[in-house]
Amino acid sequence: MSHAPSTGRFASATSVTRTGAGTYAGAVEPGWDIAGNANGGYLLAIGARSLLEATGRTDPVSVTGHFLSPGRPGPVSSVTRVLKTGRRFSDGFALVEAGDRPLLSVLGTFGDLVDSPADVLVDGSPPALPPPDECVRMDTDRGAPPFMGNVELRLHPDDAGFASGAKSGIPRVTGWFRLLDGETVDTVALLCAADAFPPTIFNADLPLAWTPTVEFTAHVRARPEPGWLRCRFTTRFITSGFLEEDGELWDVTGRLVAQSRQLALVPRPAPAA
Amino acid sequence: MSHAPSTGRFASATSVTRTGAGTYAGAVEPGWDIAGNANGGYLLAIGARSLLEATGRTDPVSVTGHFLSPGRPGPVSSVTRVLKTGRRFSDGFALVEAGDRPLLSVLGTFGDLVDSPADVLVDGSPPALPPPDECVRMDTDRGAPPFMGNVELRLHPDDAGFASGAKSGIPRVTGWFRLLDGETVDTVALLCAADAFPPTIFNADLPLAWTPTVEFTAHVRARPEPGWLRCRFTTRFITSGFLEEDGELWDVTGRLVAQSRQLALVPRPAPAA
Repeated sequence: MSHAPSTGRFASATSVTRTGAGTYAGAVEPGWDIAGNANGGYLLAIGARSLLEATGRTDPVSVTGHFLSPGRPGPVSSVTRVLKTGRRFSDGFALVEAGDRPLLSVLGTFGDLVDSPADVLVDGSPPALPPPDECVRMDTDRGAPPFMGNVELRLHPDDAGFASGAKSGIPRVTGWFRLLDGETVDTVALLCAADAFPPTIFNADLPLAWTPTVEFTAHVRARPEPGWLRCRFTTRFITSGFLEEDGELWDVTGRLVAQSRQLALVPRPAPAA
Repeated sequence: MSHAPSTGRFASATSVTRTGAGTYAGAVEPGWDIAGNANGGYLLAIGARSLLEATGRTDPVSVTGHFLSPGRPGPVSSVTRVLKTGRRFSDGFALVEAGDRPLLSVLGTFGDLVDSPADVLVDGSPPALPPPDECVRMDTDRGAPPFMGNVELRLHPDDAGFASGAKSGIPRVTGWFRLLDGETVDTVALLCAADAFPPTIFNADLPLAWTPTVEFTAHVRARPEPGWLRCRFTTRFITSGFLEEDGELWDVTGRLVAQSRQLALVPRPAPAA
């Protein structure tokens, strides 16, 4: 039940099939991983698709994911539970598992994002970015994770220094996002986009390390117009062992289409040998 | 299983008792409502306490709530499911119901917030506030909701204009929070504090109306030291019929103890008669 049935690599790699009352089958496809573990936003898209099917809605509005164990290529199932069916929105919970190993829990609100009221306040703007061709491609031939070969990312040169050991010192990442081969970025793909960029703290004055996500929430405000997204991810507080990463996704028309926030763990120093 | 067993009005009004495997009983107490409906943060605290009991942890770390129907005074049950038990954190889901009417779904991560690493980046500061006695008390004798008589709120005078028809035009609310009678604000009470203030858009150039919450998440970073919290709530985007409300809660020592974000609906104009 998709508003403009998406076809393409991402749509295929996140598709689900109903297998019973509230249960769906899908697969973690190879190549969507960071160091062997499926990208979180990609996994979340699978969970969201199962809940869209279960609720009969077309768009995720708010999706929260908790990542329970790493996703590896292979079949997965999603057991959904519709918690509320309202006039405008429906709520549901899903548990995505590989066999009996839980990968992801999802709590979400789903609706149909048409007929949006006019904007009242926009206290912000899309990040200023050089044209995509003048930005930094995350090249899987030069060490970028496989996942980044399945989407198109272009980082602002000022935010890509970490790749060459010249980090900016500012925990911020901005850049362009789209899917490969002109595939439409639908509202489910926004969930993937919101978790597709390298962590902000790659640019902070901290040892370079991946940051485990405790919790991830994306709020989808509108369907993006086709084209590149402009994305900004920032971190203001690295405190008490935690950091937040706040995302803004703007479509090609300059409209805010999604916000995201995740809580992540600051990597702990390895114990002395 | 509370680190410093809280006693007091809030602790009592959010307490739960185990009734079976993963099931808990509690109650929505009278007086914790806004116009007859229990405050969302208060309800969330009941759900969080059930998951703390179920996981055997002491502190909420990330708690997401979806409000399914209004909470009215009377008994409630919470059916919990522990999704993951890790070394540092446990994850769980809870459905809080009144009879067979679902009130609230909760997805959370719980842990033990001791031994916090040092802060690395604090790109922000507590709101500057006049002393509590020079701030604006939300007075239930003068129309403030009953809930506000069960906690202590003091709004910055610049942010309290909506109450007298002189809104600032800036969707921001800052102020002090504490519990009554010197009750300790534990990490569960932070969930309540994060949803205790009037909506930011009371100060925006919009008709004064309550804003239904689609999704609410609080991230707890540390246990607050006893005393007043300084709180700031801001909104940057009122677009496509939605708005976010971002909160920061700082303890008396100037430490960031929690962040919150909720997605809410912009009230729709009443149809013309």
